[in-house]
Amino acid sequence: MPARVGDALADVDTPALIVDLDKFDANLARLMQAVAGHKVRVRPHAKSHKCVEIARRQVAAGAAGICVQKASEAEPFLAGGIEDVLVTNEVVGERKLARLAGLAARFPAARLGVCVDDAGAALKLARACDEADTRMDVYIELDVGHNRAGVSDPAAAVALARVVDAQPSLTLRGLQAYFGSAQHRRSIGERRQAISAASALARSARDALVSAGLPCGTITGGGTGTFLFEATSGVYNEIQPGSYILMDLDYAKNVQDPSWPTFEQSLFILTTVMSRRRDAISDRATLDAGLKAFSTDSGSAMPAFPGWQVRGVSDEHTVLERVGDGPELALGDKPLLIPGHIDPTVNLHEWIVAVRNDRVEQVWRVDARGAVY
Amino acid sequence: MPARVGDALADVDTPALIVDLDKFDANLARLMQAVAGHKVRVRPHAKSHKCVEIARRQVAAGAAGICVQKASEAEPFLAGGIEDVLVTNEVVGERKLARLAGLAARFPAARLGVCVDDAGAALKLARACDEADTRMDVYIELDVGHNRAGVSDPAAAVALARVVDAQPSLTLRGLQAYFGSAQHRRSIGERRQAISAASALARSARDALVSAGLPCGTITGGGTGTFLFEATSGVYNEIQPGSYILMDLDYAKNVQDPSWPTFEQSLFILTTVMSRRRDAISDRATLDAGLKAFSTDSGSAMPAFPGWQVRGVSDEHTVLERVGDGPELALGDKPLLIPGHIDPTVNLHEWIVAVRNDRVEQVWRVDARGAVY
Repeated sequence: MPARVGDALADVDTPALIVDLDKFDANLARLMQAVAGHKVRVRPHAKSHKCVEIARRQVAAGAAGICVQKASEAEPFLAGGIEDVLVTNEVVGERKLARLAGLAARFPAARLGVCVDDAGAALKLARACDEADTRMDVYIELDVGHNRAGVSDPAAAVALARVVDAQPSLTLRGLQAYFGSAQHRRSIGERRQAISAASALARSARDALVSAGLPCGTITGGGTGTFLFEATSGVYNEIQPGSYILMDLDYAKNVQDPSWPTFEQSLFILTTVMSRRRDAISDRATLDAGLKAFSTDSGSAMPAFPGWQVRGVSDEHTVLERVGDGPELALGDKPLLIPGHIDPTVNLHEWIVAVRNDRVEQVWRVDARGAVY
Repeated sequence: MPARVGDALADVDTPALIVDLDKFDANLARLMQAVAGHKVRVRPHAKSHKCVEIARRQVAAGAAGICVQKASEAEPFLAGGIEDVLVTNEVVGERKLARLAGLAARFPAARLGVCVDDAGAALKLARACDEADTRMDVYIELDVGHNRAGVSDPAAAVALARVVDAQPSLTLRGLQAYFGSAQHRRSIGERRQAISAASALARSARDALVSAGLPCGTITGGGTGTFLFEATSGVYNEIQPGSYILMDLDYAKNVQDPSWPTFEQSLFILTTVMSRRRDAISDRATLDAGLKAFSTDSGSAMPAFPGWQVRGVSDEHTVLERVGDGPELALGDKPLLIPGHIDPTVNLHEWIVAVRNDRVEQVWRVDARGAVY
C-alpha cells in the first residue's frame, strides 16, 4: 500500500494514483444535478475506476447501479454490496457463462444483466442459467454507430429478442445502445449529430419490439461525452457515464457546451524525480513512472504544472524536459501527472490514494483491477 | 487462474498470456549458445517477464542472476530463490531506500545491487543500509546514449565512485552502461555504431576509475537488440537481455544479422471471438481483449494468422476485419495475437499459461506484476 490514512501527500510512495476528493465530490454532484430534471436513471460505468468504494459513493449519490464489461469484473462489485450490475458486453465461452450464471446464483437479491447480439449465444446463456438454477436480465445490444458488436437493425433486434424472451431463465429488459466512439468526437455538433442518429435507431428498435409484443422497458447507453444528449432524447431512460468522476486528457480535448456541467480532473499520478540532469541536450528530470504506471494509448500522461514537457516514456520512466517557467523539480520531488486515458491507467494500479488538502483521507483498493475474464 | 495443468489450449479462459514452451526453450538455449565463447556473464532482465519461474529457468540455463527495475520488483525474485539481483535503476525516496535495504537485510546470502547517478542519493542509500545494518553492491550508471538517467562522462563517474567507495555499507562494483534506445534501431549498422560509441565511453570511464584506484570489476549493459555487440566489445563483461525469451512485434521489426541467433515469438495472447458481423462496413470479428490485455505503446497486438487486420482497439475489445484468405473466425473461436511490446503487456496479467503441443504444461504466476514501487 503506497500510503496510510493521515499521511501527507508528499509522503505517499510512488508511482501512485491520487484522487483529489474535493474535485471528485464536485464531479459526482454535478452529474446528478445535470440530469435531475430528466427522466433517466444514472448507471455509471465502473470499467473506468474498478473500485467498489467509488461505486458505493455513486450509488449513495443516487445512481441506480453500475455497469461493468466482464463477468469477472462484476464479482467484486456484487460482493461489495452493489446490488444492480449490468455487464454492458457480450459474454461468450462456457467458462465465462458458468462464472456469470454462478454470480447470479450467488447473489440472488441482486439484479444482474448482460448483453447479447447472437441467438446461439443467447441460448448458451440460458443453458448456463438453467444449470446454475438462476435467471438473468438480458439486453439486446444494438449497434448505434460504433461498428463493433451489436445487431445492426430493428428487425434483427426483434428476431433476437424473440429468442431471449422464449427462454424461461432470461428476462428481456430492453436495449443496450451505447455509441462509444461518439464520446470522443471533439465538436459539440458532431457528438449531438451522432446521438441524434443513435436515438432514432434506438427508437425504431424499441417501437419494433413493442409492436411485436416484446418488452423493452430500458434503453441504456451514453457516456461522459454525450450523456445529456441521451438524457434529453426522449428515447434513452438510462445513462452510463464513467469517466466523469475521474476525467482524463482525452476527454479534456472535447469542446464543451457551456451549459453542460464541467467535470474537473480529479485523478493524478504522483511520481518521484529519480534522476536530474542539465547538459547540452536538455534540462531534464526523469520520473519513476512509465508504461507500467499509465497507458499511452491516447497519448502520454502529462505534467499537471507548467514549464515542462514529456520528452520520452519507457517501461518505468518518463523523461521531462524544461521548456519554460515552472517548478524547479529537484531530485526526490514528487510531481503530479495527468493521465491520458483513465480506464487502462487505473487498471495498472492496486490502490487509489484519496487526498483532501494534501492529506490522505482514505486508501481505496482497485478491486476489479485485472478482471479481464 | 485461466487454466489448469492438462487443459487443452482451446479450453484456456481468455484473454490469457500463452507461452509456447518449445519456442521458449529454443530462445533460452540460443542465447546461451551465442555467448558461450565470450567472457561475459548473462544477467537477463526480468522486467520483461516478471516471473520467478522464468528466472529460475534462466539461472538453470547458466545465467549469473537477473536484473530488475524497482526495489519492489526485486522482492519476489529474492523470495523465490534467485540469489543475485541487480536493480538497474536509481532508487530515490526514503520509503524506497528503506525497502531496498530491508531486502538486503532479509536475504543476507543473496547479492543485491543498485545503480546511482547522484552523490546525495548515494549517501542516502548508505544511510538506509546503515540503519538496516546491511550492505549493498553499487554500480555507477553511465549515460552511454539513451539520455535519460546516469552520469555523463568519466570524470563525473570517478567523482561519484569516490563517494560510493567511501561508504562502508556500499561496495562499488562497476558501471551500469545500458543503451536502451539502441535496442530498437532498425538497421544492424545503427545498432553496431551505437554500441561501439557506448563501449568507447564505458572503456574511458572504467580506465578513469582504475587510474583513480577505484574498483570497476563489472561493466554491465546490453539488451536483445545489441547484446552480441556488448559481448564482443572487450569492455562489457555482463549482458542484460530480457525480451529474447518471449519476443514481440517491435523487436521483430529489427533487421537481423544472419550470424546472430534467431529468437522466435514465444509469447501470445489467447482471445475469444465474442461478436461476429458481416455487413456493408466490414466482415469483422470482435475479440475479448483490448487495452487491458495488451499495451499499444509500440503498436497494437496483431493476429498471429493471415487474412485479418486490426480495425480498432478499445478498453476491452479488439475489432479484426477480414482483408484476405485466412481462418473463418466463428463466435467462440480462440485466435492468438502477438503482442506489440511485451514488458507492459505481461505486467497486465496475473498468469502465464505455459503450453506444449496445445496442452497446458504449467501455469506460472507473474509474481512481480504491478511491482511499481
